[in-house]
Amino acid sequence: MHELKRYLPLLDWGRRYNSESFASDGLAAVIVTVMLIPQSLAYAMLAGLPAEMGLYASMLPLIAYGLFGTSTTLSVGPVAVVSLMTATAVSQVAEAGSLAYIDAAILLALMSGAMLLLFGLLRMGFLASFLSHPVIAGFITASGVIIAVSQLGHVLGIRGRGENLPQLAQQLWEQLTLVHLPTVLVGGCTLLFLFWVRSGLKPLLQKAGMPDYWAGMLTRTGPVFAVIGTSMVAWGFDLEAQGVALVGHVPAGLPGLDLPMLSHPAWRELAVSALLISIIGFVESVSVGHTLAARRRQRIVPDQELIGLGASNIAAAVSGGYPVTGGFARSIVNFDAGAATPAAGMLTALGIGLTAVFFTPYLAYLPKATLAATIIVAVLSLVDFSILRRTWDYGISDFAAVAITLFVTLAVGVETGVACGVLASLALHLYKTSRPHMAVVGEVPGTEHYRNVDRHEVITRGDILSLRIDESLYFANASFVESRIYALLEPRPEVRHVILMCTAVNEIDLSALEALESINRQLAERDIVLHLSEVKGPVMDVLRHTHFLHDLTGKVFLSQHHAVQHVMAEEDAARGDRPHDWVI
Amino acid sequence: MHELKRYLPLLDWGRRYNSESFASDGLAAVIVTVMLIPQSLAYAMLAGLPAEMGLYASMLPLIAYGLFGTSTTLSVGPVAVVSLMTATAVSQVAEAGSLAYIDAAILLALMSGAMLLLFGLLRMGFLASFLSHPVIAGFITASGVIIAVSQLGHVLGIRGRGENLPQLAQQLWEQLTLVHLPTVLVGGCTLLFLFWVRSGLKPLLQKAGMPDYWAGMLTRTGPVFAVIGTSMVAWGFDLEAQGVALVGHVPAGLPGLDLPMLSHPAWRELAVSALLISIIGFVESVSVGHTLAARRRQRIVPDQELIGLGASNIAAAVSGGYPVTGGFARSIVNFDAGAATPAAGMLTALGIGLTAVFFTPYLAYLPKATLAATIIVAVLSLVDFSILRRTWDYGISDFAAVAITLFVTLAVGVETGVACGVLASLALHLYKTSRPHMAVVGEVPGTEHYRNVDRHEVITRGDILSLRIDESLYFANASFVESRIYALLEPRPEVRHVILMCTAVNEIDLSALEALESINRQLAERDIVLHLSEVKGPVMDVLRHTHFLHDLTGKVFLSQHHAVQHVMAEEDAARGDRPHDWVI
Repeated sequence: MHELKRYLPLLDWGRRYNSESFASDGLAAVIVTVMLIPQSLAYAMLAGLPAEMGLYASMLPLIAYGLFGTSTTLSVGPVAVVSLMTATAVSQVAEAGSLAYIDAAILLALMSGAMLLLFGLLRMGFLASFLSHPVIAGFITASGVIIAVSQLGHVLGIRGRGENLPQLAQQLWEQLTLVHLPTVLVGGCTLLFLFWVRSGLKPLLQKAGMPDYWAGMLTRTGPVFAVIGTSMVAWGFDLEAQGVALVGHVPAGLPGLDLPMLSHPAWRELAVSALLISIIGFVESVSVGHTLAARRRQRIVPDQELIGLGASNIAAAVSGGYPVTGGFARSIVNFDAGAATPAAGMLTALGIGLTAVFFTPYLAYLPKATLAATIIVAVLSLVDFSILRRTWDYGISDFAAVAITLFVTLAVGVETGVACGVLASLALHLYKTSRPHMAVVGEVPGTEHYRNVDRHEVITRGDILSLRIDESLYFANASFVESRIYALLEPRPEVRHVILMCTAVNEIDLSALEALESINRQLAERDIVLHLSEVKGPVMDVLRHTHFLHDLTGKVFLSQHHAVQHVMAEEDAARGDRPHDWVI
Repeated sequence: MHELKRYLPLLDWGRRYNSESFASDGLAAVIVTVMLIPQSLAYAMLAGLPAEMGLYASMLPLIAYGLFGTSTTLSVGPVAVVSLMTATAVSQVAEAGSLAYIDAAILLALMSGAMLLLFGLLRMGFLASFLSHPVIAGFITASGVIIAVSQLGHVLGIRGRGENLPQLAQQLWEQLTLVHLPTVLVGGCTLLFLFWVRSGLKPLLQKAGMPDYWAGMLTRTGPVFAVIGTSMVAWGFDLEAQGVALVGHVPAGLPGLDLPMLSHPAWRELAVSALLISIIGFVESVSVGHTLAARRRQRIVPDQELIGLGASNIAAAVSGGYPVTGGFARSIVNFDAGAATPAAGMLTALGIGLTAVFFTPYLAYLPKATLAATIIVAVLSLVDFSILRRTWDYGISDFAAVAITLFVTLAVGVETGVACGVLASLALHLYKTSRPHMAVVGEVPGTEHYRNVDRHEVITRGDILSLRIDESLYFANASFVESRIYALLEPRPEVRHVILMCTAVNEIDLSALEALESINRQLAERDIVLHLSEVKGPVMDVLRHTHFLHDLTGKVFLSQHHAVQHVMAEEDAARGDRPHDWVI
């Protein structure tokens, strides 16, 4: 039963469900539904798909997540970045606007869902941690820029398709003379209106005496008013005849349940894209989920989230949708609107379903420029170049990871961008560990503590070289450490004992062991004794299985202090005198 | 001048050259030349190239290395593994035996040379350290097996071409009925003779009173006697008429100097292969160089070795050779024969040149089976499966790296094998650091030392959780560490202070800093104070630039001992009593 609850959280919160929860969830669902309608249509357009697919992707996936997900307030569905990634992936295997394009998008959702489910069952949520914060920040900002620029075309009434900034800029530049004024008017007014709603409306409503909650909620419905307003204008002034692009016929009714052919010819080409979409979607969703859960002192379970998102994407695929994930904007509205349980999401699905059945005819007059404007306003909140400054202040390798991700995403595209970002951040980390910091240490006077001679006033002895290695010893740094030790000994001919202080050595792999053996031999030839100190339990366990401890010319000490005391006593006894060459 | 000497070591050893050095070098050169003739021919055959290319690759490259290399005894030229890699790479872009195949092999040498030179000028020798010992060991053993099996075909008189073990085994199996008895007789006898020379000849000669040095040197000339013997048999009994494959016409004279067309159509396809050959060649050469240099208390300079090998490969390309590197067998002979300076290599080049001018006609009768037998005997010394056992005893991730490299190389081929090996060893390392060991620590009685409570008898206090994190904090483990800390606090509701002991934390990147900030906030909400201890200088420098130290609820202490003393004093003062809840 406990096991079952883990995989089906519904069994847990379902028991405690009551009319109060229902009232909260119902209200949240109404508000989210109203907000989601323009958003779903817009993101479908961003993905290059028919408007109704945005609605389909906002029904069954919400129910699936409600059954399997662990966040009480996360709202899954089409989101900006994943829609852009879908467009990029699918346009590589099918012509935009073709039936094959639609099929490929559905297949992408199915593959992504299957991968997420598999990762969840294998509890591989940890994989997401290899996407560092700087890489995510750089990727999201660059995606926001690409999305905004790509939608600029719709606002200007020209075509602006492309995977990266240079392509998009070139297209916009070439067609600059084709800018369609009536479209610009509709798009421009919508943009101004939406920016005003974002920044100016809430204070106005509050001044007028509206409670905070309702002022906040009303501010979120700006896109709905823009949709209704521009649709009415388009209908009243027959803007279609003037050449303004409209959404056009959207089939009414619910999607049929269908499994896309698994033998689709493009599945191999889509595999890498599906993997990237899965990972990016998971990371975005989990970070939103964490943020919201923390506010209510709740928790989400990443491995179970994989299952929830996997189920959502499979649900999207069987109901004619496209890849979905937990989105920040939609989830925050759901949260702020007071959603108490995942039932809010299920009720939202019902609301979208009713829309699909009854309201689609009215969407025919909706100008595409309006949708483009809502996308631009939405994604500009994702764009945050300040991460460049913050990482620059913090450290070169975090900065490099952001800069590489940002630049490659803008210059080449989303998939290459995120892949390069991950590889670059891993490579930078490996590079750093391949040339570890090593400090000559001495005793902090009056303590048993040893610190860097360059940073602290410490006591050292000429015949003992105490060396702290600030890294695990493994193949990538074994030979570096070896040559560094010899280099440190070069100007210190009086050294008779080298004590390696292993506080930071969490691992010694076979390559490093061979380097240690070589160091031990080389030092022995120069009559220098090698000791180790503060070797950790797990490392000692490994060394005990080898010949190294037997061959070691010196000893292994529990602490650096013990090591120095012992060696000093031995040396002084050999010389038959008391210590005299201490140096402060 | 000093700078020039770095790039042209000849300026250094050339000044000190005298007649004594010349005598040593001359003798070594004669011995190495005699040994190199069959080896060069054999490896050219292994690479699928005409026999003379093996000789060409053993002239100019030796002179180039002599000018730029830093090892006094390394002997560059065709080697087994690089010859196999050449065959694999070139057969992907050209038909074996065609002129295009030869051109591609020359181009490969040129590209590999240019890459090595570039890496050398950029001082990127450290890249080689990412090839761990287990990966190298697995790769060399698997390559040895593939080479031996591929040459078995020549010994049996059948065709046995293929990139991996399954392909080779299938070919041998299918042609088993075509085995050519006279060839088997020649090849089998050569094999037996060579094995006997290896194992039985030296003791016999020593027993007969021959000095060790000469007994050793004579043992190395086994292949030469095999070549002479079987050539005479082939000539005397007209083995060619009986269907035994002979080397055939080898053009006499020196190679013309020529630069292969840089616009060769295959250069893109060969780029990855050239890179892999460069890295493998460099690693093999440097490890041989290190080993030999250590025996004479000399040193080699890896970054300068890149330049030496780069120059050698470019020299090979312009003189009609193919990729070369420093080989173990040839270098050890050069070393044992008493080579004193790189001039030995230059004199060897002269010896090979004389061979090419005067002795090539005699090679026409040399059976290919003889060459194949010499290759088999040579490479079997590379095959060492005991690395599997040694790594198994040592640690799972070293074993996994060997096993993956070995298996993939055998099953798929050399290039995929080495690439998978490197990636697997890096991935294993990253995986380990992504879930670091964390130890609850306590005071070792009577010292200022803190160790793991599970491994040592230590003193702890219920209201203080001292936690040692055994890894640098970076993006891949930040969230793992965070959840682990919460999990450790779960069964310890009485904890009021958490002290993170940072002895092993060599880095805190931005993602990890955000995790620390989150831990600080979360603990503050539960009225738990967060302290750090033993933060290293470089890490502290970074933290000082952030808000974290300001937001931290607790303090940063120089040592864990200070931290516990301070917190205890504070807590006890607050309670107005003396410590009473110590637990041993």
